[in-house]
This record gives sequence, structure tokens and C-alpha cells, in this order.
Amino acid sequence: MIVPMAGIYGGVETGGTWVVCALGTGPDDIAAQETFRTGEPGPTLERIADFFERGPRPAGIGVGSFGPVDLDPGSPTWGSVTSTPKPGWAHTPVAPVLAGRLGLPVHFDTDVTVAALAEQRWGAARGVDSVCYLTIGTGIGAGLLINGRPVHGLVHPEAGHLRIPHDRSRDPFAGACPAHGDCWEGLAAGGAIRERWSADPSALPDEHAAWALEAEYVALGILAIVLVASPQRVVVGGGVMERAGLLDAVRAHLVQLNAGYLQTPLMGVDIDRYVVAPALGDRAGVLGAIALAQAAER
Amino acid sequence: MIVPMAGIYGGVETGGTWVVCALGTGPDDIAAQETFRTGEPGPTLERIADFFERGPRPAGIGVGSFGPVDLDPGSPTWGSVTSTPKPGWAHTPVAPVLAGRLGLPVHFDTDVTVAALAEQRWGAARGVDSVCYLTIGTGIGAGLLINGRPVHGLVHPEAGHLRIPHDRSRDPFAGACPAHGDCWEGLAAGGAIRERWSADPSALPDEHAAWALEAEYVALGILAIVLVASPQRVVVGGGVMERAGLLDAVRAHLVQLNAGYLQTPLMGVDIDRYVVAPALGDRAGVLGAIALAQAAER
Repeated sequence: MIVPMAGIYGGVETGGTWVVCALGTGPDDIAAQETFRTGEPGPTLERIADFFERGPRPAGIGVGSFGPVDLDPGSPTWGSVTSTPKPGWAHTPVAPVLAGRLGLPVHFDTDVTVAALAEQRWGAARGVDSVCYLTIGTGIGAGLLINGRPVHGLVHPEAGHLRIPHDRSRDPFAGACPAHGDCWEGLAAGGAIRERWSADPSALPDEHAAWALEAEYVALGILAIVLVASPQRVVVGGGVMERAGLLDAVRAHLVQLNAGYLQTPLMGVDIDRYVVAPALGDRAGVLGAIALAQAAER
Repeated sequence: MIVPMAGIYGGVETGGTWVVCALGTGPDDIAAQETFRTGEPGPTLERIADFFERGPRPAGIGVGSFGPVDLDPGSPTWGSVTSTPKPGWAHTPVAPVLAGRLGLPVHFDTDVTVAALAEQRWGAARGVDSVCYLTIGTGIGAGLLINGRPVHGLVHPEAGHLRIPHDRSRDPFAGACPAHGDCWEGLAAGGAIRERWSADPSALPDEHAAWALEAEYVALGILAIVLVASPQRVVVGGGVMERAGLLDAVRAHLVQLNAGYLQTPLMGVDIDRYVVAPALGDRAGVLGAIALAQAAER
């Protein structure tokens, strides 16, 4: 039997494409880390368990998963991925399988919620109680902390699927979301850019019309988040946002959309301090999973 | 000097048109109540103070105000209405004036946040931790409780000003919001209905095209709230929603917009238990102001 090591926690980010596992206490103290492709659920969960069985044994494990997931502690399917279109993964009981296999407490939330926790604890939202972490990548996901705590509720934030204005005379693209067509994700995620322009987003030059449209759509969705949940900071990551100039263009649109209505400098001259890039890059997920386990076990 | 009466609290709802003051402990125990038109700030605050000076003296007073308001306890303008277009009221320090005049603790939040507190405590959201109270009246306002607590943050929810899809080929109306034109409020509040159809909303018959469009717009905004904040219940009040059949039409649109994506019966067959009418009617504001004072003083 592996003896639990005081103070060390496990983190797992199960992403749509990659799984990241780590053992440690924070960004500067990772004892072991492994990244592999997300495959079928059975072998993938097996490989995660193998990672942790090699030791040292953590006091608990946090998992940040792609969604939608069941976070209701009273539900028989708590800790499962629910209605994902990802082949084989719908209704996979991720947390229960890992907890049963490893005999360890497993804590579970969405990938974006744990990323918000990581950015709040170690990154771009330190000292901020109320944080939105947004990722614009293959899809669009938002995690939300209010009064320092993850927001669950009916399910959890699924902001990618809200509807934004879509002027078909300027952008005739019907949208890429299998469920909703031209919801926010259907218009503005990486997959939508690829479909609309029949090109890999990274292959579109900075001056391509794609990016002006993208800035507008991203700003419209952030505006909805700001006006509904009023976070004190919005951290915007994901592969699409790595495009040079895009974050600044999003900020400019947001200020314009606000039109002086919210009379705070953070939605005006200080927008650069309100809508910010992540500080932890693609480590936010796995680090946030560690933060989730730490917070739950303390 | 009036001796404070144990257990009794004061509540004030300062609405755009009416002010309601009350003294009591809850909906079935109101010792005194007064309603009068909202006038210029000076005389209006004076009249509120007069009401409370007549006694019995409460242990504290809650105020639910039209917004936007400053809720930052560290701000020099805490307790003020900020950027309202209501003549004379911009930058009025409502809570500080009442606290100074009455020598009582005064607690302050938005009218819709306190209405959410009232519906949670005594009304249509009893036993629910995470509640959105939405009013579709002259304007559109949303108050939000997450994990049982009012949501503040950058400012407070201002969901009325989010942008929803607006198909100008079907609805050429440019929108009624002075700041944003066709934001949610600019398309769907009572003022927008009046401008679009050049008629008082109450004069439009049930079968008028106004109501099908209204149901669609209201549903689009609620969808954004559901997907961003994931409340466990949405209470929808306000004069516009009193129209027969409108709430049911909104529910039908919401289910259709969700398209099975959130796999919960509450966004499907059980939508009637998710999006509900208020139980406290137009008393929610003043009762919620009492609830705010009670919660803060306990």
C-alpha cells in the first residue's frame, strides 16, 4: 500500500483532446506530470489511475472535466460527464470510477471552473472574489466563481450556448453548433471559424476579416456574462485568443457595447485590467484540479 | 426618542414610479405601510424618513432601489443611485441620507435583488439556494442569489442591457434603450412595446403579434441568464408578464432554444417548475427590503 503523502494533491484535467495528470501542491511544486491523448473512456480512466498508483499517494484528487457534467451531490450520477457529443463519453462516471479504483477522495468540477480556481489562486485573478474564466478554443466554455465559490445550480455555467446577435447579411454562416446552429459557440469557437472560412484558424492571417468578426462575437458573449453575473474580473484564454491583437479588439468592442452605461473605469479606460489573459496558460486546468482537491480537503 | 422595537424591521422599495415603505417582520406581519409617488430625491427621502419617525422604531432598515447603484462597501459613494436617467436622481446618496437622518443601520441593494430575497424567503423560490428574480416592466431588471447570497461584483447584475438576436427583417424597430438601442430592455421592456406599436401594452389584445415577439425576446434573455449563472429557479414578474399566456409562451420558447442540450427536465418537461411567476406580487420589493435588513442584523 502506498502511504498518503501529507500536503500533496492530485489534479486531472480531462479535456476533449488531452488528459493532463499531476501531483503536487501548486505551480512551482509539481512532483510528477503526464499528458496523453483522451481516448475511449475505459482505457483513459485506467491510464489516469495508473499515473496515481505510481505514487506518491496524494491526500485527494481533483478532476476538471469537459462538460456538461453532473455536479449535484445528491444525484446518483454525480461526477459523470452527461450529454457530451464526444464519442463514447456520454454518461461516463469519471469521478466514481477513479474514487473506486484508487480508494481516494475525488472532487469533481468542470475544466473551466477549476481553471478559474487556479487563476484566482496563483494567476491572473489573485485577490479577486468573483471571477469568470472563459476559454475560446475548439468550443467556448465559462467557469464562474462568485463570492469565492464555484457556481453550480441548475447545472453549471454553459455560456457557450447563449445566443448573440447574428447579422446574416454580414455573416451568412449558419453556425457550427450541432444543437443550436448559431449560438455563441456556433459562431465564435475555433470550430466555427474553421467551418466558416474553410481554413484552419491558425492559417488565417492577422488582417483576415475573420478576426474583426471574431472580436465582435467574443465581446458580445462576454458582455452577457458581465451583465448577468457581474464578475470582478474576466480571464479569457483558449487557443483562438492567442491571435495577436484579438484580446485588444475584444476589449475595444466591449467598451463600445457598454456605451458608458456601467459607470466603472473597468468597462471603460481600465478595460485592460478587467478583461485579461490567463497567467497560467494551458496549465490552469490541471493546477485548478489540484486547487479544487486542496480546498475540499482543508 | 423612539425606543427600537425588538424584531421589527423597516423596508423601503424606491421604484422608478412608486416608493413603498413598510414596518414589520414578514408578509403576514406588517405593522405599517405607505405608498407614494417617487418625486424629486430630497422630498422623497424626507417622506421616507417621516414614515419611520412615526415609529415603532425598527432595529434596521433595508432599501431596495432602482439602479444602477453603488454596492461596494469600500466606495465613498456606497448606497447611492449612480447613473440613472431618472431626472434628478443620478448620484443620490439614498442609504447614507436615510442612515444619517434616522440614526439607524441602513442596508442597501437593488430592487430586484431584494425581491429575489423575498421570493426565496416567503414566496416562489422557498428552499432554493440559487435564484434569479426577473422583472419585465417599464424596464428589465434581474436580481441574482447564488449560494444563498446576493450577487454583487463589478457592480450588480444589469441583465436588461445584454444583447439578444434581433432580426430586423421581422422586427424593424430600432430599440428603445437610450444607451444601447436594441439591447434586451430596448426590445422587450414595456417601454419598447409601447414605442414599437405606438400603443399602451395593456391595450394590445392577446392575439396581437406583439406578444409572440415578446415571448421570443423574453426567452432569449432568460436563456442567457440560465446559461451564464445556472440559477435553480427563475422567478419572472413585472407588469408585462401579467399578460395571459405570455409566461407559457416564454417557457415553450426556452425549451425550444435549449434543444435538449441541458439534459435536465427543468429545461424540458418540467419547465413550469423552473420558470415561475412570483408569489408575492408587487409586495416582493418592500418585503425583500425587510428581509435584507433582517438578514444583515442577525
